[in-house]
Amino acid sequence: MNTLAAYTTVCLLITLDARLIPDNYSKERRALLDEETFTAVGGKLHLNEDETIVNDILMKWKMKELNPSYTNPQHFNFSKHYFSYKNDIENSKVYQIIRRMPKGAVLHVHSSLMLHPDVLVKLTYEKHLYACFADDDLRFYFSEATPDRPCLSKWALVSDLRKSSGDPVAFDSQLKNYFTLYKEDGEDYNFVDINTVWQRFNKVYYTIKSLIAYRPAREKYWTETLKQFYKDNVMYIEVRTGLQDLYELDGSRHDKKYLVEVYKNVTAKFIKKHPDFIGVKLIVTKHRALSIEHVLEALNLTRRLKAEMPDMIAGFDLVGQEDIGRPLTDFLPILSEAKDEINFYLHAGETAWLGTSADENLVDAILLGSKRIGHGYALTKHPSLMSAVMKKDIALEVNVISNVVLSLVHDVRNHPLASYIALGLPVVLSSDDPGAWSAEPVSHDFFVAFMGVASKHADLRLLKQLALNSITYSALEDESKTRLFEVFNKRWDTFVRDVISDECLLDTSVS
Amino acid sequence: MNTLAAYTTVCLLITLDARLIPDNYSKERRALLDEETFTAVGGKLHLNEDETIVNDILMKWKMKELNPSYTNPQHFNFSKHYFSYKNDIENSKVYQIIRRMPKGAVLHVHSSLMLHPDVLVKLTYEKHLYACFADDDLRFYFSEATPDRPCLSKWALVSDLRKSSGDPVAFDSQLKNYFTLYKEDGEDYNFVDINTVWQRFNKVYYTIKSLIAYRPAREKYWTETLKQFYKDNVMYIEVRTGLQDLYELDGSRHDKKYLVEVYKNVTAKFIKKHPDFIGVKLIVTKHRALSIEHVLEALNLTRRLKAEMPDMIAGFDLVGQEDIGRPLTDFLPILSEAKDEINFYLHAGETAWLGTSADENLVDAILLGSKRIGHGYALTKHPSLMSAVMKKDIALEVNVISNVVLSLVHDVRNHPLASYIALGLPVVLSSDDPGAWSAEPVSHDFFVAFMGVASKHADLRLLKQLALNSITYSALEDESKTRLFEVFNKRWDTFVRDVISDECLLDTSVS
Ligand SMILES: [Zn+2]
Ligand SMILES: [Zn+2]
Repeated sequence: MNTLAAYTTVCLLITLDARLIPDNYSKERRALLDEETFTAVGGKLHLNEDETIVNDILMKWKMKELNPSYTNPQHFNFSKHYFSYKNDIENSKVYQIIRRMPKGAVLHVHSSLMLHPDVLVKLTYEKHLYACFADDDLRFYFSEATPDRPCLSKWALVSDLRKSSGDPVAFDSQLKNYFTLYKEDGEDYNFVDINTVWQRFNKVYYTIKSLIAYRPAREKYWTETLKQFYKDNVMYIEVRTGLQDLYELDGSRHDKKYLVEVYKNVTAKFIKKHPDFIGVKLIVTKHRALSIEHVLEALNLTRRLKAEMPDMIAGFDLVGQEDIGRPLTDFLPILSEAKDEINFYLHAGETAWLGTSADENLVDAILLGSKRIGHGYALTKHPSLMSAVMKKDIALEVNVISNVVLSLVHDVRNHPLASYIALGLPVVLSSDDPGAWSAEPVSHDFFVAFMGVASKHADLRLLKQLALNSITYSALEDESKTRLFEVFNKRWDTFVRDVISDECLLDTSVS
Repeated sequence: MNTLAAYTTVCLLITLDARLIPDNYSKERRALLDEETFTAVGGKLHLNEDETIVNDILMKWKMKELNPSYTNPQHFNFSKHYFSYKNDIENSKVYQIIRRMPKGAVLHVHSSLMLHPDVLVKLTYEKHLYACFADDDLRFYFSEATPDRPCLSKWALVSDLRKSSGDPVAFDSQLKNYFTLYKEDGEDYNFVDINTVWQRFNKVYYTIKSLIAYRPAREKYWTETLKQFYKDNVMYIEVRTGLQDLYELDGSRHDKKYLVEVYKNVTAKFIKKHPDFIGVKLIVTKHRALSIEHVLEALNLTRRLKAEMPDMIAGFDLVGQEDIGRPLTDFLPILSEAKDEINFYLHAGETAWLGTSADENLVDAILLGSKRIGHGYALTKHPSLMSAVMKKDIALEVNVISNVVLSLVHDVRNHPLASYIALGLPVVLSSDDPGAWSAEPVSHDFFVAFMGVASKHADLRLLKQLALNSITYSALEDESKTRLFEVFNKRWDTFVRDVISDECLLDTSVS
């Protein structure tokens, strides 16, 4: 009896004890979470003492800005369209840190859609610029006399139109709407279906393309673009371009190689002023809706240009809306013939569908030895392909805002980038067409990825690793890559010092 | 020279040959895709001859209905809200096949929100039913005289209100709006933020709850619910319930065990009429916003009920909006104390955020030995936890339509179920609260998962495996599980025969 009584007492004690969280539970819990942090992109980075201080500052602001949102999506409501919180980004302290952070390289942008529409409007002040407004469309042409080219309404000098409008500010504001999908007038930012938004997007593209086909305009366009990217702390760019033919005021046309030379010369001039800018390489593109013959021609062009200007040409890609374009399988014979000579940087899996030809472009991008994959949005649904991407170390060029604007995903928190980061896949962050949605070159993408997509716990290590990845997975030759790393590290140190000293000033001024 | 010429010729031949797709390329491509099919849920199922015919019929209709959508999202536009294509589902041939397919069990539904609002409206024709309309809210109470209960306007007999409205049809239609989030009047189905939609959802819940707290109404409610689920080819249900206190017309109240007995007796009566219906088990729930004391009380209740009616009680769960509720860590001491006695079926990771406490409930659900996880929506961002779920064979109760209506995801093609299926995770499909969005018991969820979430190539094997999983991962005792498998197999054979013979009739009538 005594024994039983004692036993019962012990049992009771055990029961009461069990109400505390068992020690090994907490350990196991911590271990699981730590494993995830360690696996994730940036998880293996070590921060030095100063970086740790910057990280504390960064995370202090992140928590301040996001904590209310975790329970009340009024603040930074990521379930809404990017356009609805775009203007709030500028006021974010986290954004201000991200903005001044060196980003390394931008590896996925399309040449005509990189520049902010405000600057494009300025380009329309160039002399000899004619416009044709017809229906919902706008085309430009530079010419000494009225262009002898088809126009559903009639060609008129932009300067005349602006003057006769009586309100140049309103005129420019309307003009700007042709250069961007973003509307400032606070319309409700509903998501439209993918085909509709791509139609609008293509309209913007053709309008801008018509403005910058003129050689002097293109030179200015490129100078301004470099300025903006440089200001956004981008030190190197790989640009996808279809290499349109430029023309002069007298109507004479240049060949495609000429545009490569423009890129080269304008960039060289820019580097003279900004010696820590590394440069530019081109990825030649062709529209995926075109015939095999057209694509073959583009491949041959790439081959030829690469032979003549090897430092300027990174490789080849197919572009355009993937769901309705031709699948890579259509081009397999010519692509697999070219793959040992030309590096591919193929768009693949930029689709919400699973099992369609657009989705299965991922398989072919991998098998064709694509050095990186553009978007790879659908990859998250393909465990075997994710393994292959990991094993072959194929970088994913993720463009979160582009995927929102072009209607693949509504709530950025559902973007597969979250999984790619968690898996530690080789991710680089890019912006696709920042000009087309009035975004900053790449800082908005970093902000949205950091605040909306990544974990609450994601910190400076993620941001730094994404920047480092952009250098690692660039097409730069070893020597230039080393230089870019050096430039990056130097700028990174300055960034770290600046953030700390600014915070000190802030602390002083507050106290 | 001769040698060189010969060499050039050979090179030319090789070049031309290379333009064909290399044989090993096609093989490697096929192997990658086959590996994915084999890994996916249902990929290892073998279809017999008749099933293969049914599969051909199913896939014929699937392609007919979806092919236009792959390039033009006008048809079954899954990027829009479920409400916008809900009515189109009924006309789908694929849906008609899914509707008659045996589903096995439904393992994740909440007791008050299972019944279609049309039937709820019928229940308001019961005698002695009073209503209190105040602001946007509606409460019911059964009573012989005017209820002596708080009401911001005044209590009135529903029968009187209906009569005096002059238009009973319009009255009922308005009444129905209080029972569902779905609106038939074709308003634009925009997504609202998660807090707003949960507020609406809770309103619907409290209205219905007030209607079925009356013992005779509850008995009818449960009979009608069983009828609907049975008609939808569901043979067994596990119901999450807070076990509210029922009352009688004289105002007397029953204890919580009484409701368990109502479930038991009404279900037993139903089984008498439909001997191949297996039955019902309850998962006792408590709201996750409540105090530790309340939850402990509910755990003790579960323990007691399980001891008294072991065949009726499956286990325990915490419910309510996860982002704003208490995290599981708050309840760790009492949950870990109870975990060896009570089976957990915990909601976890029903959030779009990553790294928040709602997200990390996933860790605790796993460590607490949860038998299944409710939703697990955020799991796709946690590779380590996915491995744990796989290793411990914890089923994920996925509710796609619920996640759309309750604002976790807009486009179902972005639902993580696609990844879970691809990874071959133990998934069961359920409907959470089909009554609250006027959905069929579970067939709409199967349809949306099959057409919108799963791969274009997903076929009958996925559907069958999902049904089989629902039996495998149920809380049924071995013997009952065996019986359910038998019932399922018998119904499956009938289903296969019926689909084939219907298609033959169709072929004959067409020709
Ligand atoms: Zn792109
Ligand atoms: Zn639920």
